[in-house]
Amino acid sequence: MGAVVVESLDAMRGMDEAARAEVRAVAYKGHHDFDAAEMALLPNLGVIANYGVGYDAIKVPAADAAGVRVTNTPDVLNDDVADLAVAMLLMQQRRMRQGDAHVRSGAWGQGAEFALNRKVSGRRVGIMGLGRIGRDIADRLAAFKMEMHYHARSEKQTPGWTYHADPVSLADAVDYLVVALVGGPETENYVSAEVIAALGPDGVLINISRGSTVDEGALLDALEAGRLGGAGLDVFRGEPKVDPRFQALDSVVLQPHQGSGTHETRAAMGQLQRDNIAAFLEGRELLTPVN
Amino acid sequence: MGAVVVESLDAMRGMDEAARAEVRAVAYKGHHDFDAAEMALLPNLGVIANYGVGYDAIKVPAADAAGVRVTNTPDVLNDDVADLAVAMLLMQQRRMRQGDAHVRSGAWGQGAEFALNRKVSGRRVGIMGLGRIGRDIADRLAAFKMEMHYHARSEKQTPGWTYHADPVSLADAVDYLVVALVGGPETENYVSAEVIAALGPDGVLINISRGSTVDEGALLDALEAGRLGGAGLDVFRGEPKVDPRFQALDSVVLQPHQGSGTHETRAAMGQLQRDNIAAFLEGRELLTPVN
Repeated sequence: MGAVVVESLDAMRGMDEAARAEVRAVAYKGHHDFDAAEMALLPNLGVIANYGVGYDAIKVPAADAAGVRVTNTPDVLNDDVADLAVAMLLMQQRRMRQGDAHVRSGAWGQGAEFALNRKVSGRRVGIMGLGRIGRDIADRLAAFKMEMHYHARSEKQTPGWTYHADPVSLADAVDYLVVALVGGPETENYVSAEVIAALGPDGVLINISRGSTVDEGALLDALEAGRLGGAGLDVFRGEPKVDPRFQALDSVVLQPHQGSGTHETRAAMGQLQRDNIAAFLEGRELLTPVN
Repeated sequence: MGAVVVESLDAMRGMDEAARAEVRAVAYKGHHDFDAAEMALLPNLGVIANYGVGYDAIKVPAADAAGVRVTNTPDVLNDDVADLAVAMLLMQQRRMRQGDAHVRSGAWGQGAEFALNRKVSGRRVGIMGLGRIGRDIADRLAAFKMEMHYHARSEKQTPGWTYHADPVSLADAVDYLVVALVGGPETENYVSAEVIAALGPDGVLINISRGSTVDEGALLDALEAGRLGGAGLDVFRGEPKVDPRFQALDSVVLQPHQGSGTHETRAAMGQLQRDNIAAFLEGRELLTPVN
């Protein structure tokens, strides 16, 4: 039995029962819930291979109950996501969007000075979630001579970085907070109004994880009032729709969830997704199983 | 005798002879030539303290002949300039100006995909000029897992980086070329049409040194024809005026010579400039002498 390509959950629901019974593997991409109801439509489903490291849309307890394996594409995208996190921080603090516009508009050529901005190297940074991506971000920022802090479920082996058991304590200790949490209900609004207040008017929030990890209303209120210095955001609630309040802010760098959006990495993610499906269909061990 | 503040070379030329004879120290800032003719106007001049690490506007042989000491402000700005170099590279390759516009314009929210771009980590980078700033750039890029190459007048002690005696050989070996040369006649057009051709259609040129180090006509021709992949430029010939051909290019990141443009670093530069003048006036050793 070959692989069956299903373009979307809606398309899957539109298939007749015989066709659905053919499906043993789903190559999944997207943010719509893949829950028990969807799995029940595919009685011979054996594996859902997710395209992406974050698999919060796929309900793993339901998969467990249905005897369905889940895979994701970890590691191959760490470098790109870490690069974008560092780049958003630098671009925000050095006001590089504004700098580029200052040159392009001709304002600089007509003698208008460009306002001074803030030094990045040597500052204090906090990584929230020290998984593989968080650590890749931290390793890069360490080369910018930063004082390193982190929050995670447990203390890790690190080269002299300071552990904070509490997210507010982390935010209070740093100039920059980089969110590299997993998504899902456990981290919903983890970056709360209290965390944002602790980061303060000189602080900058960087989020490359999921829009759900941040209380977006509190974030917008703080940015608009100048109670938070700025933000660099690659992820949003309800994306690709973005709260128009973000679009009006000068102090934010906004990116269209392109953390892993390079030719090289998307090719590697697709390959790993296909390799997981091939391994399942051929009865070999899954390369990057989630459950 | 206290310090005399002179607002500009023109103002200095407008001072009467007695006032000019009072001047023992000049706190210099700018890019206009300070040559033998200007020095001759100040018969008791002892020191020109430059604001900035690059002192190519101050003619040191003329200062030597006139018995005038020259100081600059090295090191205090290295971090900021290195930060901006790395940031321009990331912003160019990940198309972050375009990404921000894609979100702000509402295009993303209306369902328009953002094009994939290029992975930065793990690529090959060449540093042209491995002085203190060049090395600070290299140290940061090493944390992005890059293969390191460099060109300098002589081979240096480095951790496994590849030395190229010839600039074209360097450009040919790498994806990214970062220019960190000193300015002045010796490095005029050092990044020649041949160097740009060797860098090639996937290559990116980053310049944080001086506009004079690059053959700007050859650079613009290559960018417009797609024979060079892109550029990140903080310095230009004739700046703040910029060739309007740059402003029309999508593949470049343009910055208004803001490499050292942070509150923290500009304060440190001013302090070092004043400290050099104070040391001279009090007969102490200069902190950061050039000659």
